[in-house]
Amino acid sequence: DRRGIPEAILADGKTPDETASLVLTAVETTGRALVTRADEATVEAVRTRVDAAVADATVDTDERARTLVARAPHHEPPSLDARVAVVTAGTSDAAAAGEATAVLREMGATIDRIDDVGVANINRVLDQREALRAADVLIVAAGREGALPTVVAGMVDAPVIALPVSVGYGYGGEGDAALAGMLQSCSVLSVVNVDAGFVAGAQAGLVAQAIDAARRT
Amino acid sequence: DRRGIPEAILADGKTPDETASLVLTAVETTGRALVTRADEATVEAVRTRVDAAVADATVDTDERARTLVARAPHHEPPSLDARVAVVTAGTSDAAAAGEATAVLREMGATIDRIDDVGVANINRVLDQREALRAADVLIVAAGREGALPTVVAGMVDAPVIALPVSVGYGYGGEGDAALAGMLQSCSVLSVVNVDAGFVAGAQAGLVAQAIDAARRT
Amino acid sequence: DRRGIPEAILADGKTPDETASLVLTAVETTGRALVTRADEATVEAVRTRVDAAVADATVDTDERARTLVARAPHHEPPSLDARVAVVTAGTSDAAAAGEATAVLREMGATIDRIDDVGVANINRVLDQREALRAADVLIVAAGREGALPTVVAGMVDAPVIALPVSVGYGYGGEGDAALAGMLQSCSVLSVVNVDAGFVAGAQAGLVAQAIDAARRT
Amino acid sequence: DRRGIPEAILADGKTPDETASLVLTAVETTGRALVTRADEATVEAVRTRVDAAVADATVDTDERARTLVARAPHHEPPSLDARVAVVTAGTSDAAAAGEATAVLREMGATIDRIDDVGVANINRVLDQREALRAADVLIVAAGREGALPTVVAGMVDAPVIALPVSVGYGYGGEGDAALAGMLQSCSVLSVVNVDAGFVAGAQAGLVAQAIDAARRT
Amino acid sequence: DRRGIPEAILADGKTPDETASLVLTAVETTGRALVTRADEATVEAVRTRVDAAVADATVDTDERARTLVARAPHHEPPSLDARVAVVTAGTSDAAAAGEATAVLREMGATIDRIDDVGVANINRVLDQREALRAADVLIVAAGREGALPTVVAGMVDAPVIALPVSVGYGYGGEGDAALAGMLQSCSVLSVVNVDAGFVAGAQAGLVAQAIDAARRT
Amino acid sequence: DRRGIPEAILADGKTPDETASLVLTAVETTGRALVTRADEATVEAVRTRVDAAVADATVDTDERARTLVARAPHHEPPSLDARVAVVTAGTSDAAAAGEATAVLREMGATIDRIDDVGVANINRVLDQREALRAADVLIVAAGREGALPTVVAGMVDAPVIALPVSVGYGYGGEGDAALAGMLQSCSVLSVVNVDAGFVAGAQAGLVAQAIDAARRT
Amino acid sequence: DRRGIPEAILADGKTPDETASLVLTAVETTGRALVTRADEATVEAVRTRVDAAVADATVDTDERARTLVARAPHHEPPSLDARVAVVTAGTSDAAAAGEATAVLREMGATIDRIDDVGVANINRVLDQREALRAADVLIVAAGREGALPTVVAGMVDAPVIALPVSVGYGYGGEGDAALAGMLQSCSVLSVVNVDAGFVAGAQAGLVAQAIDAARRT
Amino acid sequence: DRRGIPEAILADGKTPDETASLVLTAVETTGRALVTRADEATVEAVRTRVDAAVADATVDTDERARTLVARAPHHEPPSLDARVAVVTAGTSDAAAAGEATAVLREMGATIDRIDDVGVANINRVLDQREALRAADVLIVAAGREGALPTVVAGMVDAPVIALPVSVGYGYGGEGDAALAGMLQSCSVLSVVNVDAGFVAGAQAGLVAQAIDAARRT
Ligand SMILES: Nc1ncnc2c1ncn2[C@@H]1O[C@H](COP(=O)(O)O)[C@@H](O)[C@H]1O
Ligand SMILES: Nc1ncnc2c1ncn2[C@@H]1O[C@H](COP(=O)(O)O)[C@@H](O)[C@H]1O
Ligand SMILES: Nc1ncnc2c1ncn2[C@@H]1O[C@H](COP(=O)(O)O)[C@@H](O)[C@H]1O
Ligand SMILES: Nc1ncnc2c1ncn2[C@@H]1O[C@H](COP(=O)(O)O)[C@@H](O)[C@H]1O
Ligand SMILES: [Mg+2]
Ligand SMILES: [Mg+2]
Ligand SMILES: [Mg+2]
Ligand SMILES: [Mg+2]
Ligand SMILES: [Mg+2]
Ligand SMILES: [Mg+2]
Ligand SMILES: [Mg+2]
Ligand SMILES: [Mg+2]
Repeated sequence: DRRGIPEAILADGKTPDETASLVLTAVETTGRALVTRADEATVEAVRTRVDAAVADATVDTDERARTLVARAPHHEPPSLDARVAVVTAGTSDAAAAGEATAVLREMGATIDRIDDVGVANINRVLDQREALRAADVLIVAAGREGALPTVVAGMVDAPVIALPVSVGYGYGGEGDAALAGMLQSCSVLSVVNVDAGFVAGAQAGLVAQAIDAARRT
Repeated sequence: DRRGIPEAILADGKTPDETASLVLTAVETTGRALVTRADEATVEAVRTRVDAAVADATVDTDERARTLVARAPHHEPPSLDARVAVVTAGTSDAAAAGEATAVLREMGATIDRIDDVGVANINRVLDQREALRAADVLIVAAGREGALPTVVAGMVDAPVIALPVSVGYGYGGEGDAALAGMLQSCSVLSVVNVDAGFVAGAQAGLVAQAIDAARRT
Repeated sequence: DRRGIPEAILADGKTPDETASLVLTAVETTGRALVTRADEATVEAVRTRVDAAVADATVDTDERARTLVARAPHHEPPSLDARVAVVTAGTSDAAAAGEATAVLREMGATIDRIDDVGVANINRVLDQREALRAADVLIVAAGREGALPTVVAGMVDAPVIALPVSVGYGYGGEGDAALAGMLQSCSVLSVVNVDAGFVAGAQAGLVAQAIDAARRT
Repeated sequence: DRRGIPEAILADGKTPDETASLVLTAVETTGRALVTRADEATVEAVRTRVDAAVADATVDTDERARTLVARAPHHEPPSLDARVAVVTAGTSDAAAAGEATAVLREMGATIDRIDDVGVANINRVLDQREALRAADVLIVAAGREGALPTVVAGMVDAPVIALPVSVGYGYGGEGDAALAGMLQSCSVLSVVNVDAGFVAGAQAGLVAQAIDAARRT
Repeated sequence: DRRGIPEAILADGKTPDETASLVLTAVETTGRALVTRADEATVEAVRTRVDAAVADATVDTDERARTLVARAPHHEPPSLDARVAVVTAGTSDAAAAGEATAVLREMGATIDRIDDVGVANINRVLDQREALRAADVLIVAAGREGALPTVVAGMVDAPVIALPVSVGYGYGGEGDAALAGMLQSCSVLSVVNVDAGFVAGAQAGLVAQAIDAARRT
Repeated sequence: DRRGIPEAILADGKTPDETASLVLTAVETTGRALVTRADEATVEAVRTRVDAAVADATVDTDERARTLVARAPHHEPPSLDARVAVVTAGTSDAAAAGEATAVLREMGATIDRIDDVGVANINRVLDQREALRAADVLIVAAGREGALPTVVAGMVDAPVIALPVSVGYGYGGEGDAALAGMLQSCSVLSVVNVDAGFVAGAQAGLVAQAIDAARRT
Repeated sequence: DRRGIPEAILADGKTPDETASLVLTAVETTGRALVTRADEATVEAVRTRVDAAVADATVDTDERARTLVARAPHHEPPSLDARVAVVTAGTSDAAAAGEATAVLREMGATIDRIDDVGVANINRVLDQREALRAADVLIVAAGREGALPTVVAGMVDAPVIALPVSVGYGYGGEGDAALAGMLQSCSVLSVVNVDAGFVAGAQAGLVAQAIDAARRT
Repeated sequence: DRRGIPEAILADGKTPDETASLVLTAVETTGRALVTRADEATVEAVRTRVDAAVADATVDTDERARTLVARAPHHEPPSLDARVAVVTAGTSDAAAAGEATAVLREMGATIDRIDDVGVANINRVLDQREALRAADVLIVAAGREGALPTVVAGMVDAPVIALPVSVGYGYGGEGDAALAGMLQSCSVLSVVNVDAGFVAGAQAGLVAQAIDAARRT
C-alpha cells in the first residue's frame, strides 16, 4: 500500500482476466486488493483466480457500490482513532458513497453513514447536526444541484470533502451542475471528480490517518 | 403595455440617443417607459429628451439596479392585491434583484425584500420562514452555486421563480453553476436566464396579476 | 404531499424493486404515488407489490408519457377551479407533455391539450388563439429550435412556462437549442430543464392552486 | 472580383495602414473595394490613401454597418434582374443586416429592407407577407432566440438564408442560441456564422446572379 | 407539398407505426412521402400499410441513405431545368449525401454525383473542375476537418451549400470540427446542421426551382 | 470567525466603499478582516475607514497576492502546532499561492513555501523531497497542464490540496486544463476552483486545526 | 503508399465488406494494407476476401490494438536506420500505443516499448532515463491527466509526440483533460487527437524516415 | 539552453521588471534570451536592464511577432544543416509565424517563408509545390477553418507541424475551428496549441537538429 491506501484497481476498461491478475499480485505483495467498478464477470474471474492461488483468502463484494475486496488470511487491517462521516443527499448517491466507504473501511477509519438528507427538505439535515459535528472529517455526496456540501460545511468545524454524483438529466445533468456548484461553493470545502468515491474516501482516509497519528503522540 | 408589463428598453447595445427616442415614444403612447442596463450617458440623454418633450414628466433612476422609469404626469400606475417576495442570497445579487423589483413596482405588486439569506449560513433563511410564507409568489436570486431557490422552494407552498446571478469565478463562474443548479433543482421551481431580473420580475408580475384578478372575482 | 404536489419517484436510476418500495410507502402514507420514466419492468414490479399490499388499490399507466399513478381506494383527488393549457409543437413533444399532464391531473387542474401547432406553419397556432387565451396558465413544449413558447407568450396575458424537449440532432440537438432559445426569449416566460415535464406540470399546478385559492376567497 | 463578389477586406485584426494598402490594390485592379468592420481610424486612413492615389475616386461609408466602399471613377457597378429581401427581427440586427446590404448593393441586386418584425409580436411579420413573397431570395437576421427565419421560411417559396446576430446575454447569449436554433430549424433554410452579414449577403448575391442569368437566357 | 418540397417524415424518435400512419396520410393527400432515418422495422411497417391501403403504390428504399419514398400510382414527379452537383469528400459521407440526393430527385433536379474528392489528395478535386463548374448549385459534404466546401467554393461561380458529416473521433469529432470549419470558411458558402442531408437537398432544390422558373420565363 | 477561518471579503464586484464597511464591521466584531482581490482604490478606502474608526488598528497588504489584513490592536492571532507546505510550479502561481498563504497565516499555521518546482524539469521537485515530506498537509498550485500536484501527491503521505491557476492560452487555457487534470489525477488529492487560493488555504487550515487539536489531547 | 505510410483503412463506420474491398485494392496495388479499429466481423471478412484473391498473402492481427495487416507474398517491408520509443503511462494506454506501433512496424522503424511509467510514481519513469534518451523520436501515450509527455520531454533531446488516450471519467474524462494538458505543456512537444495512435505512429515514422535518409547521405 | 532551445520567457502575465530580471539571468548564464508576447514597456525595461549590465550586448525585436532576443557579445549562435519551411494562409497568421521563425533562427535552422497561400484560392499553394518539397520539416499556420496544413501535408513527404491561429469570429472563432480541424485532419500531421508559435518553432527545431546530427555522421 502507498500512503496507507489499499492498492485499487479500476475494473472499467480492463478485461476480467487483467483485473484478476492485478488483484492476485496485490494480494500476494500487500495482503489485499480493492477493485472498483467491478461487474459480475470481473467478480467471477477474481474469485476463481484468488481461490485457486491463495489458500483461505476472502473475497467480499458490495453489489451496489460495485466494489470487491480480496484479502490474504494473514492480513491485519489497520485501525484508526478517527471518525469519518459519509453523508448522502438521496438514494442515487449510494454507489459513489459506497465506493468511499469501502476504501475508508480498508484504511481503518470509524465510519458514520448519514443518508437521505438532501436540502429540498432542509429539516432532515438540520436534525442530524449532532451526528455531523461528531465527525473528524466528512464526505458529502450529492447529485443534481449538489447543494448539500455547502449547507453541511456551514454547520461543522471539521473539513468537508464534496463528492458530486452523476444523476440528473438535461442541462447540467450527469453531475456537471453538482461539480460546478461545489467548486463555486460559498462554504469552504474541497472537491473530487464526479463519481470519484474512491478518491473522496482515500483523501478523507489520509486526513483521518494524520489525526490518528497526532492523537497517538 | 402588453400583458400589463411596462414597455421596457434594454439600453445595452443601443446608443443613448436611440434609447431616448424609444423612451419618448413609449411615454407618449403608454404613459411610461422602463429602461434596463442604463449607463450614465443614457440616463442623461433620456432626462434631456423627456424633459424637453413632456411637461411635468418624472424620471426616476436606481443606480445599483441600473434602471430608469419615465412617467407622464397623467399616468396612473396599477395596484394589485398580491404580494411578491424578492429574496437574495448576498449583496452581489442586488442589481438583478433591483431590476426585478423595478418592473414589479410598475406592475403594482406589493413587494417584500428579504436579503442576505444565502445557504452557507442556513439559520438566516430559516429565520425568515414567516416572511417567505406570506408571499403569493417568490423570486429567489443567487449566484455562485445558486442553492438558495431550492431551499426556499422547500419551505413555501407558493410558486418560486429562480434568478441566477453572474457572480463567481473559475469553473461554473459568471452564473453558469447557478443556472445549471436551478435547472437541476430537486425542488419544483422555474428559471429565467442569468441576470434576467426583468424577466423574473415580469413573470412574477403575471402570476400576481392572475391572483389579483381571481381575488377580485 | 408537499405543496399539493403528489409524491413523485423518478424511476430512472432505480431498480424496479426500489421504485416499488417507494411507491408503496407513498400510497400508504399519502394515499397515492406518481412514477416518472417508468419502464416495463418497473410497471410490473409496482403492480405486483401494490396489488399484494393494498386491497382495491388502482394502478394506471400512460405508455407514451412513461408515467404510473398508484392510488389507495380511499384517496380523494383534489379539484381546482383553474385551467391549464398544455401546448405542443409536434408529436415528439408528447412524452414530456404527458408527464406534465399526469402531475396536473393529480393536482386537480382542468387541462386543455393543444397539439401540433409548431411555428414552421404559423397558421396552426394562430387558429388556436381563443383556446390559448382561455387558460389561466400555460405549459408550452417544443424541441429543435423551440420557438413556440415565444410566439404563444406574445399571444396571451397569462403566465407561460416553457418546456424544452430533447429532439433534434447535430449542433444544438437533444434540447440544447430549445433550452437556450427559451432562456433568450424576447417574450416574458420562465423555463424548466430539458424534458422536465414533471417540473413544468408541478409549477403550473402551483400557480393553478394559488388562483384557485384566490377565487375561493 | 471572384464570383462577382467585390474584393472584401475584414479590417478587424489589421492596422489601418494595412487595410488602406489592400483597398488601394483592389481599387486599382478591380475598380473597387469593400471594407467590413471598419473603425474610424481605418476609414480615415483609407480615405487619405485613396484620395492621394486615385483621382476622382469615391469613398462611401455606413457608420452603423461599419462598411466602406471605395470606387474608381470608371467603375460600372453590375445590375441584376433579381430581388433580395433583407429582413430583421429588431434594431440590434441593423449592423449585420447592413453588412449584407452593402455587398448586395455592390453585386447589383434590388434590395427590400423589411425591419422590426420579430416573432414576439407575430402580427408584424404576418403583415409583411406580400413583401416577403415578392423576393427571389431572402436573408433573415435575428438575435436572442433567432426564431424569425423559421417563421419566414414557412411563409415563402424562395430560399431563405438565416443570419444569427450576437445579441442577448446569459446562456445562449452572443448569438449562440440563435445559431443553434437556425441549424435546428423545422423549416428548410441554410445558415451563416454569427454576425457574418458579408457572407449572407454574398451568398444571396450568388443566388441572385444565377436567377438573373437564367432570366436573361 | 409545401414549397415544392415533398412531405418528409424523420423516423428517428417515432415508432414504425406512427411513421407508417404519417406516410399514408401524405401519400393520400399529396401523392407521395419521403421518410429519412428509416430502420428495417420502419420500412417493413410502411410497406405493409401502404400496400394494404393504396393500390399500385410504389415504395422505394435506399439502404445506405436510410431513405424511403412512397408514391401513389397517379403521382407525376416534377422535372426542373436545373443541375445540382452533390459532392463528397469520402465514403463516410455517403449517407448524408444520399439523403440530399433523395429529396433532390423528388424535387425534379438533374443530379451529378462527384465522389471521393477529399482535399488530403488535392488532385482529385482539381480533376473535377469541369464537372463542378457545370452545376447551377452545389452541395458539398465532408466530415472530419470538413475542408472540401471551402476549396470547391473557390473553384466555381455557383452557390455552394456545405453539409458537415458526423465522422471523426476525439476533439471536434462527430461533425463538430466540420461544422465549425464550414461556418469559418474563407470562401462564401452557407451551411446546414451536421448530417442534415435532407435540409441541404431541399435548400438546393429551392434554388434549382428558382433558376428553373427564371429559365422558363 | 466561523470555523476559525477569518471573515473574508471578496473585493471583486464590490465598490471600495462597500468593502470598507464590511471590513469595519468584521474588525469591530471579530477583531480582524481579510480582503482578497483588493485593488488600489479598495486598499485606500479600507485604510481611511479603519484608521478613522479603530485606534491603533493595523492594515497590512500584499500587492502580489492582492490581499489585505486589518486587525484591531487587541486581536491575538491563533497559533497552531501544524505545518502546511505551499508549493508552486512557477512564478505565475504566486498570486494564488499568496492568497492561500494569507489565510493560513491568519489561522496560525506554520507555513513552508516551496517555489518554482514545475515538472518540465523534474529534478527541481525531486530535490525538495525532504521539505515536502515534513508537511502535515500540502497545497500545490500549478497552471497550464497542472501536473505538479499529481507528482507531489505521489511523493508524500500527507493530504494534498490541488490549486489550479489561470495561466496558459489557447485550448485549456485560463486554468481549464489544470483543473481538469487535477480532477483526473492518478494520485489521490482533492481540488478547489481555479485561482481559489483562499479556499485552498482555508481548507488546509481546517486540516491543520484538526491535527493541532489532536496533538494537544 | 503515400509518404511511405501504408494505406490505412479506419474500419469504424464501414461495413466489414466495404473494409475488405478497400484492403484488397490496397494489397493488389501497394502490396499491403493496414486496418485500424477492426472488430471480429471485419477481421473475418478481410481474411476471407484476401485468402480467396491473393495466393500466399498473410493477414496478421493484434487483438488489443484492434489492427490488421494484410500483405502480398512479394511485398518487402522497408527498414529504417532510426529508433522510435513508444512510451505508455498505464495499461489502458495499450490500444492506442499498439496502433502507433503497428504503423511504425510497417514503416520499418526500430521500436522500443517502455510501459507503465505513469507520473503518480515518478521513480518508474526516472529509472528509464537511458532507454528514453536512446530514441531518435518518442511517442508518449497517457490518459486521465496526461502528464507523462511533459515529464519525458523534459528528460530527452529528441522530439516528443504526445498521444492522449480516452480513459478517465467525470470532468475532463475520455481524454479531454489529457489533450488539453498536452496542448498546454510547459515542455516543447506536439500533439495528435485523442486515441489517434495511427497519426502519432505515422508522424513519428515520417521523422524517422527523414533521419534515416540523412544518415544514409 | 535545454535541448538546444533558447531560454524563452513568456512576458504575458509578468511585469516588465520580472521579465527583465529573467532575461538578464539567461543572458549571463546561457549567452542569450528569447522573450515572447513582449509589449512596449517590456521591451523598454529589458533594453535598459541589459544595456546597464552586459557590455556590448545586443537586443533585437520584431514588432509584429512581439518577440525580443537579447544576446551577449561572445554568444555564437548554432547553425544547422536543415531547412524548415514556415507557411502561412494569410496575413493574420504573421504574428504566430513570426514567433516560430524567431526561435528557429536562434536554433540555427535555414528558414523559408511561404506566405498567403490559403486554400480558398487553391492555385496559390499549388504554385509553391517545389518550395514546399524542398523543406526537411514544415510549420503550417492557418486561422478560421485552418485547412491549409491538411492540403500541404498531402503535397510533401516531410513531417508537417500544424499551427492554429486565433482569427475568425462567431462559432469556432478565435482558433477553435482551426485547432479542431487540424486534430481531425485526414492527412498525417501533429499539432500545437492555438497561437503557440514558440512551441511549433521549437518542435520543428528539434526535428531539424536531429536531421542535422544525422547528416553530420
Ligand atoms: N474508482 C476510482 N476512481 C479514481 N481512481 C481510481 C479508482 N479506482 C482505482 N483508482 C486509481 O487509479 C489509478 C490507476 O489505476 P489503474 O488503471 O488500475 O492502474 C490507481 O492508482 C488507483 O489508485
Ligand atoms: N421526471 C422528473 N423530473 C424531475 N424531477 C422529478 C421527476 N420525477 C420525480 N422528480 C423529483 O425528484 C426528486 C428526487 O427524486 P428521488 O431521487 O426519487 O429522491 C423528488 O423530490 C421528485 O419530486
Ligand atoms: N465581415 C466578414 N465576414 C466574413 N468574411 C469576410 C468579411 N469581410 C471580408 N471577408 C472575407 O474574408 C476573406 C479573408 O479576408 P482577409 O483576411 O482580408 O484576406 C476574404 O476573402 C473576404 O472575402
Ligand atoms: N509563447 C510561448 N508559448 C508557449 N510556451 C512558451 C512561450 N514562451 C515561453 N514559453 C515556455 O513557457 C515555459 C514557462 O515559461 P515561464 O512562465 O516564463 O517560466 C518556459 O519553459 C518557456 O519555454
Ligand atoms: Mg442533490
Ligand atoms: Mg449564492
Ligand atoms: Mg419545435
Ligand atoms: Mg430575435
Ligand atoms: Mg473530410
Ligand atoms: Mg504548471
Ligand atoms: Mg495518465
Ligand atoms: Mg485559414
